[in-house]
Amino acid sequence: FVGAATPLFGGIVLLFTRMNKILEIDEKNFTARVQPGVVTANLQKEARKHQLFYPPDPASLKVSTIGGNIAMGSGGPSAVKYGVTKDYVLSGRIILPNGELLTPGVETMKGVVGYDILRLFVGSEGTLGIFSEVLLKLLPAPASKKTMLASFKNLHACTETVVSILHAGVTPSTMEFIDRSAVDAIMQSAVMSDAQAESLGLKEGFHAVEGLLLIELDGSETSISEELQRVKDICAEKGCLSFQLAKSDEEVENLWRVRRSISPAVGKLKPTKINEDITVPRSELPKLINGVKEIAKRNNVLIVCFGHAGDGNIHVNIMTDRENKEEYAIALKAVEEVFDLTLALHGTISGEHGVGTAKQPYIAKELSENEIKWMKELKKLFDPHNIMNPGKMFP
Amino acid sequence: FVGAATPLFGGIVLLFTRMNKILEIDEKNFTARVQPGVVTANLQKEARKHQLFYPPDPASLKVSTIGGNIAMGSGGPSAVKYGVTKDYVLSGRIILPNGELLTPGVETMKGVVGYDILRLFVGSEGTLGIFSEVLLKLLPAPASKKTMLASFKNLHACTETVVSILHAGVTPSTMEFIDRSAVDAIMQSAVMSDAQAESLGLKEGFHAVEGLLLIELDGSETSISEELQRVKDICAEKGCLSFQLAKSDEEVENLWRVRRSISPAVGKLKPTKINEDITVPRSELPKLINGVKEIAKRNNVLIVCFGHAGDGNIHVNIMTDRENKEEYAIALKAVEEVFDLTLALHGTISGEHGVGTAKQPYIAKELSENEIKWMKELKKLFDPHNIMNPGKMFP
Repeated sequence: FVGAATPLFGGIVLLFTRMNKILEIDEKNFTARVQPGVVTANLQKEARKHQLFYPPDPASLKVSTIGGNIAMGSGGPSAVKYGVTKDYVLSGRIILPNGELLTPGVETMKGVVGYDILRLFVGSEGTLGIFSEVLLKLLPAPASKKTMLASFKNLHACTETVVSILHAGVTPSTMEFIDRSAVDAIMQSAVMSDAQAESLGLKEGFHAVEGLLLIELDGSETSISEELQRVKDICAEKGCLSFQLAKSDEEVENLWRVRRSISPAVGKLKPTKINEDITVPRSELPKLINGVKEIAKRNNVLIVCFGHAGDGNIHVNIMTDRENKEEYAIALKAVEEVFDLTLALHGTISGEHGVGTAKQPYIAKELSENEIKWMKELKKLFDPHNIMNPGKMFP
Repeated sequence: FVGAATPLFGGIVLLFTRMNKILEIDEKNFTARVQPGVVTANLQKEARKHQLFYPPDPASLKVSTIGGNIAMGSGGPSAVKYGVTKDYVLSGRIILPNGELLTPGVETMKGVVGYDILRLFVGSEGTLGIFSEVLLKLLPAPASKKTMLASFKNLHACTETVVSILHAGVTPSTMEFIDRSAVDAIMQSAVMSDAQAESLGLKEGFHAVEGLLLIELDGSETSISEELQRVKDICAEKGCLSFQLAKSDEEVENLWRVRRSISPAVGKLKPTKINEDITVPRSELPKLINGVKEIAKRNNVLIVCFGHAGDGNIHVNIMTDRENKEEYAIALKAVEEVFDLTLALHGTISGEHGVGTAKQPYIAKELSENEIKWMKELKKLFDPHNIMNPGKMFP
């Protein structure tokens, strides 16, 4: 029975993915009732038509579904200001492995009757049951947005800037960190023309830059212009080398191009990319990035770092070649060292991607024996025959 | 064994309440590590010293502890902008009934490794285990605050104002609703002098007022003054009868006096107050309040309404006399009718108080048979001998 479970589960998920209707957008209560197969970007577009806003923005939002986002508890660049998918699920209809229907959660903004069973299922990677419908929280759409890119000659200044901006009461809707190695990768891979790089200040004098911050502010025009001034002042105080504010939609696109070019660029450097989404308390970012650089050097592996600096969530890309056994073994050793470093800095080995099969071998590094034991007890309680996404999460 | 469990559990809770140290405030990562016995107001005060802010503000904050707040998932007036206690618990050390230590959660702003066991314990009313230490999220302290009171001649205008303010992208840190009956109670009970009432506009022409909104905005001076103008405009559009902006700390105190006088005032009207904290989708507030008025009239019971309009959480105070059996029975009948009305409006019977013993007889009205069954399974899994807060939550 369990042997047939994986394809069976795959078939069920496929079925639910086809349930892709936005059933209702409630303009007064700021909620959306959707089926699990709705593509995240479609919900965002639909919400905008009602002057509302669904904040979670995983990089995969044009293809990933709400059901998938809920299964993984997905985050994205906006998490620093708006939180992650977990924070937007108000209630759900869940089909349990035994066929029973469970409807945990409330249709209101608050509710404390009974245990929070809903949150147990959110982020459980489909291993406990399947959402057939969810009620999501929406927010009023911010009126305006401004995008800027600052460069720093050292990592410490870069991270200090992140903390200072937040401490000043300014919470950007994006605060993306881009490591020197990521920019090098962009330049080497020629995904960006010399002229484009020039206009972004990534050519002349760029050898001095160790880190970039891509910052976006949203809100009312007045509050943004006040916040912009503070961000500019703080970047200057921390000795930023350049500060570019996008003045048109085209310039916004250009600034984002730096961030968006990283993945295709690193993809050109090596055949295999191992992408980890480690997260540390944000004050530990310099130690993390420097430590990762050391690991890269020691193992002679290319590691490219970028990600969500505001919440300490860094995408560490270990570039390797799966076909080259020796090289791949070294890359896996580097991955393990990155995880050990992350945990030594009180971090987590996954901020928003989840465990699946990729991180299965490592969860015992982060979770205590007791935690794993009790998680397995919960799995056994809801899914005694192990038919829900079998073989995932637990080693 | 189970018979001795209640006093045993009481003793344990008392012990943990004495663990009242704030262990660390981390200024860079915006976190506080505290013991469960820390009084909520003390944490708020300590955070302020570091220009940080612990938002959850249950009315009991001067006496309630963080451990208690976590057990109940407590909310407060600021929930409309900042969420509830549940949203601020990052990780915890939990002692399980079998003596094992469980350390769920992460020290970072994000984390998706394994099931969200932490959230299962938050709001579980001490029935699954006991927190011996927690890491809480803090926010940067808002620079400024403005307080205002608006009066409306009908409930519908009052609620429409709440929705319009939120839709305009303004999220007040407080949006408290005060029903006509609550103001009447204040006037009758003489907890406020005639001069005070006069200065608050609660005497002359007050017969026309059906509802008051106490609104507080926080943030930077610039953003507040912009938001204030929008709130004022919206209140005017919705035909508010009066709009008072506090211009000094004393005037702020005066406006809050209206809200704070309600509990002592209603306490003087009848010997027993049954205080329920029902919550509905906020667009249903007019139906809820009008329905409660009908229930009051039909049963000839005094019911006073006030509470957190922004998130649809209304404190419904059914005034009665526990010693008068006949009267008390009618009051209980009214309570049940209020719950039925709330649930018919897609609400919950408790937005922030929890179940305990008071709402035990009613949870089956809200939760499905399946939900209760699975909650009991979870209870049995973690606490097979029923020694953790026995006799609470489940009927």
